[in-house]
Amino acid sequence: MSTEVLAASDVLAIVEAARKASRKLAVASSSTKNHALTRMAAALESHAAEILAANAEDVKAAEVLAARGELSGALFQRLKLNDDKFRAMIQGVLAVRELPDPAGRVLDRKLLDDGLILQKISCPLGVLAIIFEARPDAITQISSLAIKSGNAVILKGGKEVERTMMALLSAIRGALGEVAGIPEDAVSGVYGREAVQTILGMTGSIDLVIPRGSNALVQYIQKNTQIPVLGHADGVCHIFVDAAADQAMAVSVIVDSKVQYPAVCNAVETILVHSAIATEFLPELHRALTENGVRVRGSARAQASLPEAVIDLVKDDEWHTEYSDLVLAVDVVADLDAAIDHIEKHGSHHTEAIVTADPEAARRFLNEVDSAGVFHNCSTRFADGFRYGFGAEVGVSTSKLHARGPVGLEGLVTYKYQIEGSGQVVRDYVGRDARTFRHEPLDF
Amino acid sequence: MSTEVLAASDVLAIVEAARKASRKLAVASSSTKNHALTRMAAALESHAAEILAANAEDVKAAEVLAARGELSGALFQRLKLNDDKFRAMIQGVLAVRELPDPAGRVLDRKLLDDGLILQKISCPLGVLAIIFEARPDAITQISSLAIKSGNAVILKGGKEVERTMMALLSAIRGALGEVAGIPEDAVSGVYGREAVQTILGMTGSIDLVIPRGSNALVQYIQKNTQIPVLGHADGVCHIFVDAAADQAMAVSVIVDSKVQYPAVCNAVETILVHSAIATEFLPELHRALTENGVRVRGSARAQASLPEAVIDLVKDDEWHTEYSDLVLAVDVVADLDAAIDHIEKHGSHHTEAIVTADPEAARRFLNEVDSAGVFHNCSTRFADGFRYGFGAEVGVSTSKLHARGPVGLEGLVTYKYQIEGSGQVVRDYVGRDARTFRHEPLDF
Repeated sequence: MSTEVLAASDVLAIVEAARKASRKLAVASSSTKNHALTRMAAALESHAAEILAANAEDVKAAEVLAARGELSGALFQRLKLNDDKFRAMIQGVLAVRELPDPAGRVLDRKLLDDGLILQKISCPLGVLAIIFEARPDAITQISSLAIKSGNAVILKGGKEVERTMMALLSAIRGALGEVAGIPEDAVSGVYGREAVQTILGMTGSIDLVIPRGSNALVQYIQKNTQIPVLGHADGVCHIFVDAAADQAMAVSVIVDSKVQYPAVCNAVETILVHSAIATEFLPELHRALTENGVRVRGSARAQASLPEAVIDLVKDDEWHTEYSDLVLAVDVVADLDAAIDHIEKHGSHHTEAIVTADPEAARRFLNEVDSAGVFHNCSTRFADGFRYGFGAEVGVSTSKLHARGPVGLEGLVTYKYQIEGSGQVVRDYVGRDARTFRHEPLDF
Repeated sequence: MSTEVLAASDVLAIVEAARKASRKLAVASSSTKNHALTRMAAALESHAAEILAANAEDVKAAEVLAARGELSGALFQRLKLNDDKFRAMIQGVLAVRELPDPAGRVLDRKLLDDGLILQKISCPLGVLAIIFEARPDAITQISSLAIKSGNAVILKGGKEVERTMMALLSAIRGALGEVAGIPEDAVSGVYGREAVQTILGMTGSIDLVIPRGSNALVQYIQKNTQIPVLGHADGVCHIFVDAAADQAMAVSVIVDSKVQYPAVCNAVETILVHSAIATEFLPELHRALTENGVRVRGSARAQASLPEAVIDLVKDDEWHTEYSDLVLAVDVVADLDAAIDHIEKHGSHHTEAIVTADPEAARRFLNEVDSAGVFHNCSTRFADGFRYGFGAEVGVSTSKLHARGPVGLEGLVTYKYQIEGSGQVVRDYVGRDARTFRHEPLDF
């Protein structure tokens, strides 16, 4: 199968079937959708042997590529399923089942006149296309999120994961159908590079493309489709250490933001330090980062505050760099305004944090920085759907558009997420003896 | 001025200045923004003579074009200001001032852990670019909406309206500046066809493009920019007359939806009639439409139900047509499912209505039709921000994307507006002795 080519007409037929299925799925009740997710989890359980065998074949083929240096070690690790990862995938499906149904909710209701009632109702988007690389868990996660939200989904995985994807889809689609009350075409897969071209051209049939993978993949997709794309090409996140920062907290927050998982988009890439504390703070920061295996780069001003160390100089055109590795860049800035200017000029509008004990500086930073996440006194790594309490995450969006129907003033604003912390780091919420999130609603 | 060409570097400088201004405007308080709107209304008042003189020059030039048949009568009418229209523009600015501030609202607030609080906050988009044709009132309306919502705005009007636009902008910008606490660069204008090219290429500097004009203009912009576009290329709205319809109500709703203002996007273009009532209903409908000057076209099945009239046949590839005139198309469909299929195949996802006394048919139509507006027993012309009670309208969006930051289940749904009516028509809400909307919030 993995050597076959899928003709454009096959892809069109698959998308058309998905569109038809989406109309049925869009009006399925919450209990029907939940029941389908229960069946899906059971099907994964009962097809475990075939799925793991298909994955083992993918892994064998990938080993050859990895040995030739044609596949990165990280990609190889993500591809490989084991019993624990497989069990977590099934648990993930059941966790999505437990979330509240986001569709069919009344968002607003207004009496326009006697007997004339306006309601604003949430409803599914229609058909999603997910273009991802090698992660098998993306398949079950996205499929279950799609079913729960009432959207049909077309999956296109990288060549490396094709056998695994087909085995997973066979189990998932088998759990749907007439008995489940949801057409099996609500979840389909396509393969081959040509299929991506066809999908990206299907404006009107596909409502949203979600790329999950490298910056290059996301950028390619953003540039080659008129369909809305949910995601972000890069995450160049900043932390500004203000003159009024608790410096020990700043070191701890920065180390967590860089070291806890350097390959992800919400890891920090650039540290901006207020000039008033640079000579005191930077040697401490440099020591802590070096101890954690982080290579520090920086501006001439940063170098000047580090008399006992030699760092790589960052060139003017290098500040917009997502290292995705144990490397970061440091600059010294005159004040809060200069920090905000730097972020506006070089950032990616993903997530930025300030460390300060000055509430006015924090207020200004949270208000004035134009990013999807603006944090005070905590790690940038909190920018994550699970940590925000969403129960699951489709991706992180740095776009702002969101309006439908007549658009008034409300359509001219977007939203951002602010966090007020007291030095928390993600590390404490991971692994054995981790703190658990409380996720309690507050009055506002 | 109108013969000068604005160099691309000038446009870049204007957008850059707007971006800078947008950061100040984004954090301006509600009272600062309201005060600026008061000043703006006063400035329009005190510059009335210059503005009306500039408009008279535009009108004089347009008369030459209109005489040569190079400018439509409708465009000419829209261009021309008089005292009443000018007064309504000023009233419009003051009405926007009275709306609640949409920015800086807490949309969600959650305790993630002790001392770790997540807030979802509404905030402005940044810089808007409005590309419109000849309507002077669009300039004051969009400028006041932009200031109220905290967004900077770049206006690009058609050549015909350039003198009027520059006179209006001179008054508006004079009302801003240091005294107002909002930089005058928050509202700027550019001119010339080349400026549009430059603007459409400024991804990252401009956050949203709003085209206001012909379908051709909107389509051109959608195809030639990576910046999100708010709007809709066409409005091919449908009304389905169910077997269980109150037929007198259906005639009244259809006549209103077509005749009340045929040139607008929410006017109906296609009527779908349930086959069980076609021979009884269609002659009545045909009579009423003909009396109102509407030319009826239709399918062979529609013709068969109209033995005493001859109608133009609609070809298979003509069903997606926005007539924007006193013309409409009629088809006869087997049932509700066939009506929904027709709308899915030929519609534009703008606004569709069902006329029926059967609550189950209405429920299915409202749930299953994938359009921004789905109405029961009322005119499609209610699809309008003012009628929805928004106080003002930027445009009507048929797009669905809307997510920012980590996207969970909520990011996979959009919303639609439903109206439950009892035969209301827009006509009754227009002109002397018009009914007024009540716009009362209801519990839900």
